[in-house]
Amino acid sequence: MHSGKFFGFVLIVTRPAYLAIVNVVPGSLSPELEAGMHLKNRFLPIASTWLTRTLIALVLIASNQLPGPVFAQQDPLPSWNEGSNKAKIIDFVDKVTKEGSEDFVPIARRIATFDNDGTLWCEQPVPSQLLFVIDETKKLAPQHPEWKDTEPFKSVLNGDLAGAIAQGSSGFMKLLTATSGGMTTDEFYRTVSQWMPTYKHPRFDRPCTELVYKPMIELLTYLRANGFKTYIVSGGGSEFMRPWTEQVYGIPPEQVIGSTEKTEVQWRGDRPVLMRLPEIDSVDDKEGKTININKYIGRRPIAAFGNSDGDLSMLQWTAAGNGRRLMLLVHHTDAEREWAYDRGSKIGALDKALDEAMTYGWLVVDMKSDWKQVFAFDK
Amino acid sequence: MHSGKFFGFVLIVTRPAYLAIVNVVPGSLSPELEAGMHLKNRFLPIASTWLTRTLIALVLIASNQLPGPVFAQQDPLPSWNEGSNKAKIIDFVDKVTKEGSEDFVPIARRIATFDNDGTLWCEQPVPSQLLFVIDETKKLAPQHPEWKDTEPFKSVLNGDLAGAIAQGSSGFMKLLTATSGGMTTDEFYRTVSQWMPTYKHPRFDRPCTELVYKPMIELLTYLRANGFKTYIVSGGGSEFMRPWTEQVYGIPPEQVIGSTEKTEVQWRGDRPVLMRLPEIDSVDDKEGKTININKYIGRRPIAAFGNSDGDLSMLQWTAAGNGRRLMLLVHHTDAEREWAYDRGSKIGALDKALDEAMTYGWLVVDMKSDWKQVFAFDK
Repeated sequence: MHSGKFFGFVLIVTRPAYLAIVNVVPGSLSPELEAGMHLKNRFLPIASTWLTRTLIALVLIASNQLPGPVFAQQDPLPSWNEGSNKAKIIDFVDKVTKEGSEDFVPIARRIATFDNDGTLWCEQPVPSQLLFVIDETKKLAPQHPEWKDTEPFKSVLNGDLAGAIAQGSSGFMKLLTATSGGMTTDEFYRTVSQWMPTYKHPRFDRPCTELVYKPMIELLTYLRANGFKTYIVSGGGSEFMRPWTEQVYGIPPEQVIGSTEKTEVQWRGDRPVLMRLPEIDSVDDKEGKTININKYIGRRPIAAFGNSDGDLSMLQWTAAGNGRRLMLLVHHTDAEREWAYDRGSKIGALDKALDEAMTYGWLVVDMKSDWKQVFAFDK
Repeated sequence: MHSGKFFGFVLIVTRPAYLAIVNVVPGSLSPELEAGMHLKNRFLPIASTWLTRTLIALVLIASNQLPGPVFAQQDPLPSWNEGSNKAKIIDFVDKVTKEGSEDFVPIARRIATFDNDGTLWCEQPVPSQLLFVIDETKKLAPQHPEWKDTEPFKSVLNGDLAGAIAQGSSGFMKLLTATSGGMTTDEFYRTVSQWMPTYKHPRFDRPCTELVYKPMIELLTYLRANGFKTYIVSGGGSEFMRPWTEQVYGIPPEQVIGSTEKTEVQWRGDRPVLMRLPEIDSVDDKEGKTININKYIGRRPIAAFGNSDGDLSMLQWTAAGNGRRLMLLVHHTDAEREWAYDRGSKIGALDKALDEAMTYGWLVVDMKSDWKQVFAFDK
């Protein structure tokens, strides 16, 4: 520790890079980043004098908390059991963030994309957005007497979840457009915002936003703390996720890529509104994920995280870039704390992607053995 | 200055918010923001002791450079002549960034969207992307003998720019898809990257990337220094802009929203590529800008900048939000240093948007009188 401190001292006095000493701004993630920029403009002149640098270094030394090995000893992933997967994640982050290393990646290119359903939060017995549209279908049913005899509405109204799932994705799309089309984007935002904290998940009796995986939240935080920009790339609707992703995952709306419905500008008096049309614009699944990553982000991720065949294209696209990469699949193996499913599952089938992971050495997280804790409320 | 310093001292010692003292990281914009986050995580513990805070405050005082009125006196927009427009821009930024003010906007919501052609760079005699496709058409012509008798190719190959423009946007689309479809996104990226620095603009004999408006670059920088996230929302192609916007505007690819072509995942051996198809996916113009702002960003801008009727919907959408807003049109009034055009122009017509600007008090920048300098190379 002594030599670490001395090293830090030398760097601080000699290299403006290491003058980045304190950046403490209240508020959530994005604001801090932006505020950092603002403050940098204001304080750059201060740090540029040799005397000030020396003084600041002395303060740090006095405070006995110089950066370096001291901090590296903290466990960034406390809910992950020790093992090969955890070690490989940390090794990847160490390598791409180490300046001078041949694997070094500049911060601007540290893009990490995460699937949502089954990767960041629970997708069983059905994805939360389906729970939402089922709930909304019931609310709207009195205005649609014809639903009693039409699938998939009939199954939903009879409480037959298996029957509703059996309608497949076209059935889901019908429910989706019937329940969330025909309102403005602002109205839909409010509807989701009101539903999310009040609805209780059928198995866990908690809001879906509490059914997020603690180890994955730690991973998001760890990556961001190492300069990564974290994105959601999900088959779920962009507008279903954006009202709560910032609070739950620390991911702002502009880093949420999902399926979208067509919208059009309409006028209510002298105010334009965006009306959601009952028509799918883009399905952000399978190859659609790769296409949308290119369309929205314009850079190839260096790390990608998924749990099903729907994520395979995104992982292949990530893997095909040059330089060091991290591809990871969450394998649901824990029926006790969550669910156990893979090949042949109606929801989140993991089959071909599992084979490719084996072939190419992508990480496959065994939920049961790799995760100390699944949910924050687990003991 | 003395009282300012004392005030700063008190804040530093009492409020962690003002401990955000030094954030000096080498590298370009995005990296700094991200690195700031990284460093915050490392240094938070230091700043949280009262003694350290006091010591850091003393260092700042010793350095005689406490923030406050001293810095506010710098002119953030030196290429703008003094006048009502400049004053209103600065007043807007002051109001929305002043904590406690009724107009205050948290950093995460400080979204500013900029049209590109005619707003950030020159769009005459035709937008640069048309210059690009004309150039590419000529290169590809030997492989397409049929173009000699087919519009718009015929006009282009005969050097008849007016004839090519007369084909309208459908003609442009034909040129675009004929010249930039059928290659992978990586190949197109390289093609644009090679073309941009070598092609010379017909009037100014310089690369198009030098024909950016200096006052607007200052405005982008000024907004970012005040916590704004700056986006391009342009009718031009996303993939035509992304190779150079970071270097020229400080805007990273993921903050560039433009028109897009359809793409599909194809395989070259064991590597997936994204093939650009000769088919338009989305035209980011007029109402398309509003639709795409909602789709890509998911937040409504609080400031929007344009120069033509193609930007009207984006300005209306911005204006329709709650709270203080800034809507600005660049009016091309300077035939000597650039061009003079508005109503009835074939390129960048400004007609209805000019009327609305008058009606609602949006800022209309008179290029001739408001801008001290247009291009960086102007004397």
